[in-house]
Amino acid sequence: MFKINDNYLKLPGSYLFSTIGKKVREYSQANPEKEIIRLGIGDVTQPLAPAIITALHKAVDEMGASETFRGYAPDLGYEFLREAIAEGDYRARGCEIAADEIFVSDGAKCDSGNIQEIFSLDNKIAVCDPVYPVYVDTNAMAGRTGVYEEASGKWSNVIYMPCTAENGFAPELPKETPDMIYLCFPNNPTGAAITKDALQEWVDYANREGAVIIYDAAYEAYISEDGVPHSIYECEGARTCAIELKSFSKNAGFTGVRLGYTVIPKELKCGGTSLHSLWARRHGTKYNGAPYIVQRAGEAVYSKEGKAQLADQVAYYMKNAKVICEGLREAGYTVSGGVNAPYIWLKTPGTMTSWEFFDYLLEKANVVGTPGSGFGPSGEGYFRLTAFGTYENTVRAIGRIRAL
Amino acid sequence: MFKINDNYLKLPGSYLFSTIGKKVREYSQANPEKEIIRLGIGDVTQPLAPAIITALHKAVDEMGASETFRGYAPDLGYEFLREAIAEGDYRARGCEIAADEIFVSDGAKCDSGNIQEIFSLDNKIAVCDPVYPVYVDTNAMAGRTGVYEEASGKWSNVIYMPCTAENGFAPELPKETPDMIYLCFPNNPTGAAITKDALQEWVDYANREGAVIIYDAAYEAYISEDGVPHSIYECEGARTCAIELKSFSKNAGFTGVRLGYTVIPKELKCGGTSLHSLWARRHGTKYNGAPYIVQRAGEAVYSKEGKAQLADQVAYYMKNAKVICEGLREAGYTVSGGVNAPYIWLKTPGTMTSWEFFDYLLEKANVVGTPGSGFGPSGEGYFRLTAFGTYENTVRAIGRIRAL
Repeated sequence: MFKINDNYLKLPGSYLFSTIGKKVREYSQANPEKEIIRLGIGDVTQPLAPAIITALHKAVDEMGASETFRGYAPDLGYEFLREAIAEGDYRARGCEIAADEIFVSDGAKCDSGNIQEIFSLDNKIAVCDPVYPVYVDTNAMAGRTGVYEEASGKWSNVIYMPCTAENGFAPELPKETPDMIYLCFPNNPTGAAITKDALQEWVDYANREGAVIIYDAAYEAYISEDGVPHSIYECEGARTCAIELKSFSKNAGFTGVRLGYTVIPKELKCGGTSLHSLWARRHGTKYNGAPYIVQRAGEAVYSKEGKAQLADQVAYYMKNAKVICEGLREAGYTVSGGVNAPYIWLKTPGTMTSWEFFDYLLEKANVVGTPGSGFGPSGEGYFRLTAFGTYENTVRAIGRIRAL
Repeated sequence: MFKINDNYLKLPGSYLFSTIGKKVREYSQANPEKEIIRLGIGDVTQPLAPAIITALHKAVDEMGASETFRGYAPDLGYEFLREAIAEGDYRARGCEIAADEIFVSDGAKCDSGNIQEIFSLDNKIAVCDPVYPVYVDTNAMAGRTGVYEEASGKWSNVIYMPCTAENGFAPELPKETPDMIYLCFPNNPTGAAITKDALQEWVDYANREGAVIIYDAAYEAYISEDGVPHSIYECEGARTCAIELKSFSKNAGFTGVRLGYTVIPKELKCGGTSLHSLWARRHGTKYNGAPYIVQRAGEAVYSKEGKAQLADQVAYYMKNAKVICEGLREAGYTVSGGVNAPYIWLKTPGTMTSWEFFDYLLEKANVVGTPGSGFGPSGEGYFRLTAFGTYENTVRAIGRIRAL
């Protein structure tokens, strides 16, 4: 008689964004005349840049002709893309990362969910609190997190590192030593950045304690200030303790195109075993590569035209971030983020909980955001807005909130 | 101090096709003047059909315009594709499968590797022997297969169901009752098909014993004979015991495009928990959908033009299968498969092992095939050739083998 993986049954409720989607659908069905503006889920709204569209059409034509058709992609991804990444995202920034340390995938969500598979079930994880839910939920599914305690909103076997206004949304080194440390900077959901010096402390800590850092740099393209690292490999010693995850979703608008990559330096080892070889084995056994046409689109991101067009796209969204930050501050809200990240993190007014504020905004302003408590217990009393809407909708949404 | 998942260290050598690739590369580098014909890996060679190219271009244009741009796809896949699948692959064949029982993915390799995650680590699996290596390797990575015994080529905690000439390459009901049964028909690697009556016996067995069948129907489009089921849901009672995996790789040439789907009927339960809800949770947490443009390409597979063009493509490959079967038989080989499947399974001559025959064919005929022993111990003494080459290359390869 077969049995299921009952770790799944320990998961509380459904995935955050499914719950939000359901609430919005229900409100919308009950109030079909209301026009809802979505600044909740981190989905982009600008169309793909012309350089990417051109690359896609060209690759599609190649797939239609015998001489240029491509079947299965190489395990790690096409050389043309891995070389473009190694040059554009690493060597150009003085980081020593080789093309064969880059694993192309269909997105950072999959990678951040799958990466835990190559680690022991006995490892203990540490996460920022609040945090992108995928890190914790996928470890829970694997059975690494103990039991979920409804009252505290915490798992019994997870080290939470609170990031609140009190510590400037920067995690402190945990008292208990973790085995795996998930860090995401610029941060989702708080929009906070980390300085290079502060990140260097984490790298030193991980090397000293024998921990591995899983560094999610999905929002790197939004960094506007100096002294904020674009990659963890800008820090000395990161090659022996850190895995980096990158996405094309936010810098190039690929949320519906699907492309990402993971970097595992060959020096990152446990005893004699390199994590690179384990991830290569996983890739070879469970994955069959990102589509050829999508990998060509990824290559175009690093072309001269692509870079210029995408810099404009990022600037467009950051203009929205400014509208949100300034508008909310003028309306009396306490706001952070939005400078090196497309996320704005605000304190809910008075004693309102995050979900109360979600309902309030949805009903009174017809604006959708994301309740901070959905990202962890220390997110309670906070709320996330994203800069990924259109400029026009962003201005209108903030106008509605100010009018409340 | 972090630890790795040491189940990975139990895996023997590297993935079959990586080993073949390495051997071919080495031979090719040592003998650059030799022209190698590849009938080994199951990769297609015909370009994408015109109806699919048109759909891809149209979808790319949509992604380039604000009004039609699409970001994150719905968790289960776009309705337009799931409806086309439900109608084309199921309702049209009298199978009762609803669109919301279909989970669109980036391919059957990922699905067949990931599906084990929703099951208990205590479950015991049964596989055909020989078998597609992904089923066993991914269960080994999860820790479900015990230890690998070099001498027998078997895992201590796996039920092997030999498929050899003696039983007509059809697995018999195992003596020990498994929890999870992997079946693939038409079969990779033997090319054998199963009759509807024989498959009904498996469905009845699974329902009786409380086992779940994971049914890989990736080669369904190659079925040419009556009485051979295109889906396990043609069998009565399959909705309470079977998951079906499907690929667009072989029926539509999508090996480099990446699209597949998994069917989980809502009646398939363990106690009160539906497997559908577990897989939906996995999809929502660890996956972000197949690219929009690829899902539109998938939709075109079910259009009138798409169907006609792809029927021609399948016929093209099956003409190759005939060339291989007839040529080898005339050369004195014992051959099976190739009638309802794109794979031809042959007995190696005399006392040659599978790998000896691989080296022999590579060196003497410059033809690459796949050693049967790479698929499991009962594959020893057999060899797989695929019909996915070009017609010209297939004719030349068989000519070379006959000339030996």
